[in-house]
Amino acid sequence: MTVLSMKRPVSAIPQTGRDARLAIRSGQFSGQTAGVAPGYVQGNLAILPGSLASDFLRFCQLNPKPCPLLAASSPGDFRLPTLADDLDIRTDLSRYRVFRRGEVVDEPSDVRGHWRDDLVTFALGCSFSFEEALAQADIRLTFRERNNVAAVYVTNIETAAAGPFRGPLIVTMRAFTPADAIRAVQITSRFPNVHGAPVHIGDPARIGVNLDRRYRNVGDGEVADDELPVFWACGLTPQLAVQNAKPPLCLTHAPSCMLITDLRNASLAVL
Amino acid sequence: MTVLSMKRPVSAIPQTGRDARLAIRSGQFSGQTAGVAPGYVQGNLAILPGSLASDFLRFCQLNPKPCPLLAASSPGDFRLPTLADDLDIRTDLSRYRVFRRGEVVDEPSDVRGHWRDDLVTFALGCSFSFEEALAQADIRLTFRERNNVAAVYVTNIETAAAGPFRGPLIVTMRAFTPADAIRAVQITSRFPNVHGAPVHIGDPARIGVNLDRRYRNVGDGEVADDELPVFWACGLTPQLAVQNAKPPLCLTHAPSCMLITDLRNASLAVL
Repeated sequence: MTVLSMKRPVSAIPQTGRDARLAIRSGQFSGQTAGVAPGYVQGNLAILPGSLASDFLRFCQLNPKPCPLLAASSPGDFRLPTLADDLDIRTDLSRYRVFRRGEVVDEPSDVRGHWRDDLVTFALGCSFSFEEALAQADIRLTFRERNNVAAVYVTNIETAAAGPFRGPLIVTMRAFTPADAIRAVQITSRFPNVHGAPVHIGDPARIGVNLDRRYRNVGDGEVADDELPVFWACGLTPQLAVQNAKPPLCLTHAPSCMLITDLRNASLAVL
Repeated sequence: MTVLSMKRPVSAIPQTGRDARLAIRSGQFSGQTAGVAPGYVQGNLAILPGSLASDFLRFCQLNPKPCPLLAASSPGDFRLPTLADDLDIRTDLSRYRVFRRGEVVDEPSDVRGHWRDDLVTFALGCSFSFEEALAQADIRLTFRERNNVAAVYVTNIETAAAGPFRGPLIVTMRAFTPADAIRAVQITSRFPNVHGAPVHIGDPARIGVNLDRRYRNVGDGEVADDELPVFWACGLTPQLAVQNAKPPLCLTHAPSCMLITDLRNASLAVL
């Protein structure tokens, strides 16, 4: 269908997690997942050899704000039944990255050819979920109005290391009026499984951030005169820690091509 | 007991709401109530003629953050049984202020002589309750370390008027590190009956505040280099609105001589 390579009409965008996975698995849908299956939890993916699994699990446990673990598989199991009954982690993302010793060696739309029976899958929460909650509360996300995503920065805060996994805390920045910043703290506090409350508010220099120097140039770093920058822990933190660890094999989602689950964002709220 | 006019040993400070009221009613205790009956809710008091009661109630309803209503009496009734079984609002505060047409005319320790059978009593929450919750969470209240209270400021934000009750929003300011500011938003959000979440964070000028110009010179306006000022709605807002209304009679608590209830601060948490 050539229409899929053009700007798709809304009717062509899968509206549930299951529809999205089926469309991706069958090759009918490819590309970025922002706006796909609205209301359903999307996640970051990291798949590692079993010998590194317990260190990575401990890294997540030590750094829960950047690494909110939604699910972990048994070694070799390509299913994550707590996230979706039918999920096959080898085929259900629109694009993957294959890392060997920290270098990208492939960007396939299917990782069955890379699968090993010792691989352990980790699904981590992502800020799409809390951004939906903010938008539903009429909190302005001005970067979205500019068709962009939240700006990403490397801080001078070190994560707690576990085995070979170590590195700086990476954060996303969203700018709000003071009243909306207070609401944003309240709302994101309800979602500890998708980064939760901010880690910093106000002066970027206090966490070693220069707003003009975004990580990989990602996102919109604009802060208006009447706004405060607010910083959340980011899922790129474990991704960089994995790259630093240089494992023999690591499979991840490609940027913006997230794992789509059957969980509803609202179901993640703890109160 | 002369000891009561000196710095009292802890053992002489009433430890429960009931003990505090009994000590005050019998004349054994007088003076400010900070540190008295720790853990028990203290409140602001406003007593008005019945003809003004519905306007004042509406003022509180329109401005819940500065005017969190804990209880309102029937006309002429000097009890507030939802706050304490035995409470007699005419005798159970250590000091009162009597206003006539907006002017202080008396500061008695008993208002039985001013009582009328149309008077309606309003008890409003106060920030002592959420400060206790902050301190219990190890959030530093640096003004306390300097033996002071939170700084008070008049903002350029107008309250919603009701009948003759109108005036600016008055706020208290507490300075925190960014991480503690985020925790303070979370913790005070649990206490909507005692002013709840902050109304502003960051640049004081955005709400018309100059940190060097405190209202009646009350409190500690110091903000360290690594701190952010955080602003909460203050119970002096309704007090100023009442003064502006110039009612024929109004009875209030004297500064820092609060109504002490049998409610526990922890019982006010909504989650």
